[in-house]
Amino acid sequence: MTHHVRVVYCTQCAWMLRAAWIAQELLTTFQAELMGGGATLEPGTGGVFEVYADDELVWSRAADGGFPDIVALKRRVRDRIAPGRQLGHADRAAARAAGDGAGDGAAMG
Amino acid sequence: MTHHVRVVYCTQCAWMLRAAWIAQELLTTFQAELMGGGATLEPGTGGVFEVYADDELVWSRAADGGFPDIVALKRRVRDRIAPGRQLGHADRAAARAAGDGAGDGAAMG
Repeated sequence: MTHHVRVVYCTQCAWMLRAAWIAQELLTTFQAELMGGGATLEPGTGGVFEVYADDELVWSRAADGGFPDIVALKRRVRDRIAPGRQLGHADRAAARAAGDGAGDGAAMG
Repeated sequence: MTHHVRVVYCTQCAWMLRAAWIAQELLTTFQAELMGGGATLEPGTGGVFEVYADDELVWSRAADGGFPDIVALKRRVRDRIAPGRQLGHADRAAARAAGDGAGDGAAMG
């Protein structure tokens, strides 16, 4: 199944570069899932910074406050487009934070 | 009117970086035209490198041979999504090549 992510960024705030960085991080980690779909960079205005996975909002600067930690963002995107997928570093970091010591899968994060 | 560009690149060839560069060049030059639409980076395979403007193919590595000169590519994208638009440097370079000395509009290229 083909998937798609989208980063909407404010041009007035000059956030194209960080939007492009995030898009490339997601294209690298979710290369197989995004094959034939992809990552869209969408210029916007008014301080917008939003990330969508298959049109579901997974990060909003307004609602979540500021910019996403890339590892946390990948978990949110994974939960939407590749729920069974181990993210390696990202999952281990989350497991450590949760204090359960789990998450020794192969690193893909 | 909202417009959209798309760069399809071969992941096996590791062309994500040049695809992302081209997408950012187009987002910078055609910021107003791409507002609410955007630029999509689409992973592919088999040596593909294609650029679409509003779903019209404006560059194909297979048909055009290799990778686009960024200035020539912007003219092709402009002709599709912003036909009346002056591109400055890009148009002057084309005019010089054509030997007519025209093209002194404001630089936007």
